[in-house]
Amino acid sequence: MKRYLRPAAFICLSLFLWSEAMAGQRPGLRELGVVIGTLPTGAHNDITDVPGVLVGHRTIIRGEAIRTGVTAILPHGGNLFLEKVAGAVEVFNGFGKLAGSTQVHELGRIETPILLTNTLCVSRVADALLSYMLSLPGMEKVQSINPLVAETNDGFLNDIQARAITQEDVFEALRSANGGPLELGSVGAGCGTTCLGYKGGIGSASRVVEIEGGRYTLGVLAQTNFGGRLTVNGKVLEAKAEIEKPGSGSCILVLATDAPLESRNLRRLARRAFAGMARSGADFSNGSGDYAIAFSVHPDFREVMGEGSLGRSRRPLNNEPAGALFRAAAEAAEEAIISSVVAATTITGYQGHRREALDLDILKKASPGQK
Amino acid sequence: MKRYLRPAAFICLSLFLWSEAMAGQRPGLRELGVVIGTLPTGAHNDITDVPGVLVGHRTIIRGEAIRTGVTAILPHGGNLFLEKVAGAVEVFNGFGKLAGSTQVHELGRIETPILLTNTLCVSRVADALLSYMLSLPGMEKVQSINPLVAETNDGFLNDIQARAITQEDVFEALRSANGGPLELGSVGAGCGTTCLGYKGGIGSASRVVEIEGGRYTLGVLAQTNFGGRLTVNGKVLEAKAEIEKPGSGSCILVLATDAPLESRNLRRLARRAFAGMARSGADFSNGSGDYAIAFSVHPDFREVMGEGSLGRSRRPLNNEPAGALFRAAAEAAEEAIISSVVAATTITGYQGHRREALDLDILKKASPGQK
Amino acid sequence: MKRYLRPAAFICLSLFLWSEAMAGQRPGLRELGVVIGTLPTGAHNDITDVPGVLVGHRTIIRGEAIRTGVTAILPHGGNLFLEKVAGAVEVFNGFGKLAGSTQVHELGRIETPILLTNTLCVSRVADALLSYMLSLPGMEKVQSINPLVAETNDGFLNDIQARAITQEDVFEALRSANGGPLELGSVGAGCGTTCLGYKGGIGSASRVVEIEGGRYTLGVLAQTNFGGRLTVNGKVLEAKAEIEKPGSGSCILVLATDAPLESRNLRRLARRAFAGMARSGADFSNGSGDYAIAFSVHPDFREVMGEGSLGRSRRPLNNEPAGALFRAAAEAAEEAIISSVVAATTITGYQGHRREALDLDILKKASPGQK
Amino acid sequence: MKRYLRPAAFICLSLFLWSEAMAGQRPGLRELGVVIGTLPTGAHNDITDVPGVLVGHRTIIRGEAIRTGVTAILPHGGNLFLEKVAGAVEVFNGFGKLAGSTQVHELGRIETPILLTNTLCVSRVADALLSYMLSLPGMEKVQSINPLVAETNDGFLNDIQARAITQEDVFEALRSANGGPLELGSVGAGCGTTCLGYKGGIGSASRVVEIEGGRYTLGVLAQTNFGGRLTVNGKVLEAKAEIEKPGSGSCILVLATDAPLESRNLRRLARRAFAGMARSGADFSNGSGDYAIAFSVHPDFREVMGEGSLGRSRRPLNNEPAGALFRAAAEAAEEAIISSVVAATTITGYQGHRREALDLDILKKASPGQK
Repeated sequence: MKRYLRPAAFICLSLFLWSEAMAGQRPGLRELGVVIGTLPTGAHNDITDVPGVLVGHRTIIRGEAIRTGVTAILPHGGNLFLEKVAGAVEVFNGFGKLAGSTQVHELGRIETPILLTNTLCVSRVADALLSYMLSLPGMEKVQSINPLVAETNDGFLNDIQARAITQEDVFEALRSANGGPLELGSVGAGCGTTCLGYKGGIGSASRVVEIEGGRYTLGVLAQTNFGGRLTVNGKVLEAKAEIEKPGSGSCILVLATDAPLESRNLRRLARRAFAGMARSGADFSNGSGDYAIAFSVHPDFREVMGEGSLGRSRRPLNNEPAGALFRAAAEAAEEAIISSVVAATTITGYQGHRREALDLDILKKASPGQK
Repeated sequence: MKRYLRPAAFICLSLFLWSEAMAGQRPGLRELGVVIGTLPTGAHNDITDVPGVLVGHRTIIRGEAIRTGVTAILPHGGNLFLEKVAGAVEVFNGFGKLAGSTQVHELGRIETPILLTNTLCVSRVADALLSYMLSLPGMEKVQSINPLVAETNDGFLNDIQARAITQEDVFEALRSANGGPLELGSVGAGCGTTCLGYKGGIGSASRVVEIEGGRYTLGVLAQTNFGGRLTVNGKVLEAKAEIEKPGSGSCILVLATDAPLESRNLRRLARRAFAGMARSGADFSNGSGDYAIAFSVHPDFREVMGEGSLGRSRRPLNNEPAGALFRAAAEAAEEAIISSVVAATTITGYQGHRREALDLDILKKASPGQK
Repeated sequence: MKRYLRPAAFICLSLFLWSEAMAGQRPGLRELGVVIGTLPTGAHNDITDVPGVLVGHRTIIRGEAIRTGVTAILPHGGNLFLEKVAGAVEVFNGFGKLAGSTQVHELGRIETPILLTNTLCVSRVADALLSYMLSLPGMEKVQSINPLVAETNDGFLNDIQARAITQEDVFEALRSANGGPLELGSVGAGCGTTCLGYKGGIGSASRVVEIEGGRYTLGVLAQTNFGGRLTVNGKVLEAKAEIEKPGSGSCILVLATDAPLESRNLRRLARRAFAGMARSGADFSNGSGDYAIAFSVHPDFREVMGEGSLGRSRRPLNNEPAGALFRAAAEAAEEAIISSVVAATTITGYQGHRREALDLDILKKASPGQK
Repeated sequence: MKRYLRPAAFICLSLFLWSEAMAGQRPGLRELGVVIGTLPTGAHNDITDVPGVLVGHRTIIRGEAIRTGVTAILPHGGNLFLEKVAGAVEVFNGFGKLAGSTQVHELGRIETPILLTNTLCVSRVADALLSYMLSLPGMEKVQSINPLVAETNDGFLNDIQARAITQEDVFEALRSANGGPLELGSVGAGCGTTCLGYKGGIGSASRVVEIEGGRYTLGVLAQTNFGGRLTVNGKVLEAKAEIEKPGSGSCILVLATDAPLESRNLRRLARRAFAGMARSGADFSNGSGDYAIAFSVHPDFREVMGEGSLGRSRRPLNNEPAGALFRAAAEAAEEAIISSVVAATTITGYQGHRREALDLDILKKASPGQK
């Protein structure tokens, strides 16, 4: 009999883990009556509201110790190396391993999908991303690619030293990328993360802004993994659970917009995302490596291989009107972060560590509807 | 008779203006039962709780159009050029005229008092600061001084094109500097500013932090002049008054500490002040030039003229424990900003423009006591 | 008789000083057979070869102790505030007092003429520049202007503590601005400077670059005041004179171009000017505050007041072709620096200090014609 | 017979390649009578003159197409994660893939060996470095490591898309690290690089500086792979060979010193290395990703795990005396670059591409002995 026990136990465990991770048919923030900020949202209220943006997840739950994953954000569905988008990286706290920042800063361009993963897998995820890019048509002679990979540390729930992510996992995240509505919570690179004392994960939100007749969408996707006190519209919902290392953790905020912006104003936009993070209750500790990545999908601001020495004819927003998007960035980042906690389901993992999902009844009782 | 009327009218007006500005025997935030954050404050809950720090104001109210001033923050009472302190400037939005940033960034030292004033007076205030420094004993052969002067734009209440500040005003601000408790509100460089739809001004707060047996004080002084929605512990107290240019304005946050920190960690500390600013309701618009300046008064971290090629023997806080001060920076900045609005009195000025003080009854009704 | 002596002596001294400063009908570098680099020059081989750029000097020689001045560079002849140009400031060594850098960095725009002067006069020159700007038509309601003023320290030849520059001097520099060919050497802000052991001053050079059918001019103006060993095409012409403080001094390099570049690539362009400075023999000491300012005069890249929320339609050079201008920046900066020394005439000043002009025979003997 | 031919051919080819790579018993720069700069060198005139610094190479020559490698620089022989050194990264042109910069910038610490490799292998080399670090004693609970890996692009001589570097190669470079004298030229990460039209590679040099009784050593190691015209003490030795992509390539400069410097002044030191690069003839093109990494081996400036919240008692060099090392940085970088070309041997590789070594007779004829 004994020989049947192990597989059976394994199947049971797997089913349990699956159910735990997928328990997440949790209502969204807006369904709970919570509205962050004052600007209108896009159709799905997520980053895929920005035309052409695709997102894919690869959630990796294996045995008792592996709780990690990869999330891929594609500014457009084509070959990003051949058709680069205007982009920027802004660092609030550089205690992180983000790959690709100096080139984005220097050239103002993003030339690969943006991948999110765990701290110790940045290198192998970047390497897999290179394999992916090199496998695309038209890349035969390319000798230099700048993979853009960010991370937060899921080492509480995940056996991070195992570096469990394979090339196939990365390819799967890229292949599964689609246009929304997004799956949020304990998925992809958010599978094993912790945010503000609760289970964190992947969150997203969007805003629509009108500027002198132009109508622009801005979306944020957040990978949340930082300390502090969860604050929803000013109501503090402090986790009672004992927090192992209260100050540690990180946050990655990816901003997409269809507004006509060069990298300089994209960087300014990215900076405002940290205002939203502050309002969510972040403590911005020493150990929290906090980065924001922004890009524009506007076709005029792309650099397309083979189009000659001059960029496409473009009309960027001037500084003052560009500022109308800044509030959208702060609002969408705040909501993206909170939505990650609302969507995330309880996860038990490495060494039996467990991170509880936010009890939505407590959220409802606090009635933080609108500020 | 007529000839007596004008002087009489002038005296009346002056008395009225004086009373308006000085109406400010308003209770402080804590007296109103409002507590920001969780850390304990210093003795006065202002920047002068940091040992040796001195602050002076020169408030300039003249005729119907001049509502401006100068505020001086002295890291210590000696000659700062001969005994420089470790310091840093952090820029959140560089749309401002702050003088002195590149040298502070390069050398990690502050060598003059820090002066705050209005946008169009930075140059003449800096020039007066040079006169002041050159007049000190021991400066006879000095050929290079880096005046550190920051600003916000008080052009709504003040005839800013008049550039009404004289060298004597600057000297008066410097001479009047003392160790607290501080006068807050519509004083000094805060005389003519607007914050979050209400009359803004000068605010301050402090926090005390214990790190492995060490006890450190951190204080913030804020010159507040930015747009957004006033938010106190999550309660929004939106100004009903029509805001001329809602997005414009700026904020200067000066952080002092006695913790043993080099310029790199002082800069990281300064960055956290913007988290407090975010929580106060700032919209971080294009036009808001937001800067934070931080310094340590710790004697071991000074560069003292004539002490040779090696700095004093010192033991800086390592990165992780330095992070324990980060929350203090965010909390104190948030409270400093709100305290500026609570303390500020209504001002009428240039072209009859009027900025109302926050009605404290409304604040009490919102009962934002603690978050 | 005695009463006639003083005026006569004064006249004699003045004539002597004038002749010393104006001795400079010295031949240019190219007339001496020296060619720096390989790219062709513009018509005058100076910064005014860039269409529309104007330069003015105000040289201030007074009594025995005042040897200083102001140099004004105008990106175009109109009101720069109403028609801002794309610009950037790059800092190699921030030990300097340059006013205006944070705003240029944030907004990517230059909105005033660029003024060069001495270290302790930055503030009053900036204040005079504000007066000038505010006096222009159309500025009645303007409340915020970012004066861009850079400096080097002429305290060896000039009584710098006297801060001898007046508003009228600044106005004169601005009024006298014209389109070249430029006066170089011991003039304007270069009146009292020292470079590489010799009398330094103002230098300039230009290059013409063709990029896929486009023909672009790049010009550099240098205010030279730094230590090291003068090196012309690899030949070292070390000054025998004892150098008071060998390492001190600074360098300001202003780059103008008509190429279609945004601020990001202008900043990269500016950085390359320091390669030219390195080749001229600079030692880049702690005390040398070295800055480069770059702007494009291209009309499509201007931000014109009242033209709405979108900038003009533009086609910037892509990164790779923009790089074709980088060599031009390095070459022109190197030649501008050397030309300042070749043009500068001997000056005697403060406390009898004297800085000798480079002996051109020594230069000829070294025959550094071309590298 | 045929079956014997292939192995024989393979052996012959291998011997040929080996002899080509090892032909490098070439004399050093100083043996050729060339002296760069004026400061004295350390014992070996290489980076290992800085006490405790170790360097290892893994040269990878395989078949006709693989010509690449790894070079490891160890600031000390212990576990760098447990005993971090003060460090800095300075970017002149961020068009590169350097991993680890944001954390070094934020925390001022280097916590792994520094590895150099080719552009498309940064990720897998960084991943191997993680494996190495995690395998060390005392790392069992570590969840966050910042691998510092830089690169240049050897795609002309090497089939870079093959990404031929394995974990074992990285381990071998680390295991072989020793204290000098160093092997230079077409070795390690310099196996396949091109510099200034000639075969480039790994170069190194050192300088000794006395500052008020203190005696400090500074060493530079260069991985050279950039375009321009080789310039030795002002003599141009332009390569006649047709250059495929004249402007492309990169340069990594690693600076070590035993001087007591914090990260801020290390970063300033690193910046001066680019002055040396300029003098060597670099054209600093768009495609040349140029980085300098600096660290201090001074024991007082280390952050040692378990030593508490305060760093070790230390006395850093003040800014002005620290500047005495700046000239050393520029000189040593210039010589390191030139020494890489002098030492490098001809390499034939990918697609039959061939990069000729500098003909030393031409160098001698130019007699660039000293400037």
